[in-house]
Amino acid sequence: MGTVVSSASMSLDGYVAHPDDTPGALFDWYDNGPVEVRTAAAELTFHLSEASAAHWASWVAELGALVVGRRLFDLTDGWGGNHPLGVPVVVVTHRPPSGWAHAGDHTEFATDVGAAVARAQQIAGDATVGVAAGTVGSQCLDLGLLDEVSIDLVPVVLGAGRPYVTCSTTQVLLGDPTTTVQGDRVTHLRFPVRR
Amino acid sequence: MGTVVSSASMSLDGYVAHPDDTPGALFDWYDNGPVEVRTAAAELTFHLSEASAAHWASWVAELGALVVGRRLFDLTDGWGGNHPLGVPVVVVTHRPPSGWAHAGDHTEFATDVGAAVARAQQIAGDATVGVAAGTVGSQCLDLGLLDEVSIDLVPVVLGAGRPYVTCSTTQVLLGDPTTTVQGDRVTHLRFPVRR
Repeated sequence: MGTVVSSASMSLDGYVAHPDDTPGALFDWYDNGPVEVRTAAAELTFHLSEASAAHWASWVAELGALVVGRRLFDLTDGWGGNHPLGVPVVVVTHRPPSGWAHAGDHTEFATDVGAAVARAQQIAGDATVGVAAGTVGSQCLDLGLLDEVSIDLVPVVLGAGRPYVTCSTTQVLLGDPTTTVQGDRVTHLRFPVRR
Repeated sequence: MGTVVSSASMSLDGYVAHPDDTPGALFDWYDNGPVEVRTAAAELTFHLSEASAAHWASWVAELGALVVGRRLFDLTDGWGGNHPLGVPVVVVTHRPPSGWAHAGDHTEFATDVGAAVARAQQIAGDATVGVAAGTVGSQCLDLGLLDEVSIDLVPVVLGAGRPYVTCSTTQVLLGDPTTTVQGDRVTHLRFPVRR
């Protein structure tokens, strides 16, 4: 089975969004470079630095499925059934939407994190399962389901917001970063979780 | 005047200590390497990796004074009047201790952060003023007194604790790191604050 990796852009004080769920300066690096990067969503094209473009290409290439929470699903309307990363999405929710306009093969629903990760791994085969940071990623960390933590560290202090890690009550040791890539207004870091 | 730099070891979720003020795994990098580094405190010797030892030497060489809060002063008993970094310390407190056993030339008291930084800059001359992360560092950030943010990023998730940044209510932009040094269980990062 492929590895399970949480991922998000994060401020120096550990937030992945402002309190109102907007990313603000956290997403500046998606649109401040010379390299045009088309995504699986027709309306979304990034403009990345050379370094971030190479890092992004590598991330897209290894991904086989995503696990996200209901909040992110609702905020994005499930990316219209077509996630920019171009892989199937498994949504953790106790109440799957009925009659959702974009229901289809690329979006599934699971009632808990464990089931969602298991299903995503089934879909992904040997490819990586990406897990949204925040509640879902933290639950995976607490449950021992997370193999790696990927952080796009952005040089900004938000002061408040949605934390990358929530509600974890026990210390979790990770290893030194296996990836350190400096982009423009982002440092891409990836840490293995120690078991 | 020298630059004002906040500094601390920090977990991936933004904490500089556990809730009980102990550092736990945050300080592992001070004692996991082959390079013996003596400090200005006779009883304290570090054992650093080659990379961290070079980074540490550079930090010690540039420092001229420190600003710390009353909590840290009390927790360490003011380092017995002799801080391991070997520079004078200015403590922010509304109630300077009377009859403190280690009172002397190396420790002063100031009633607010602005006065403490001004006094530390006076002592340091062209050398750097180091500011403890947490309450004091965050007040400096809010007041626009901070030139750089230094983070010894440790691959651990604490889940709870004392945050590096507290109580800041406005977004503060920083620049990309001017220093990125990989040690053993620590990544040394330093970010300029944008004005």
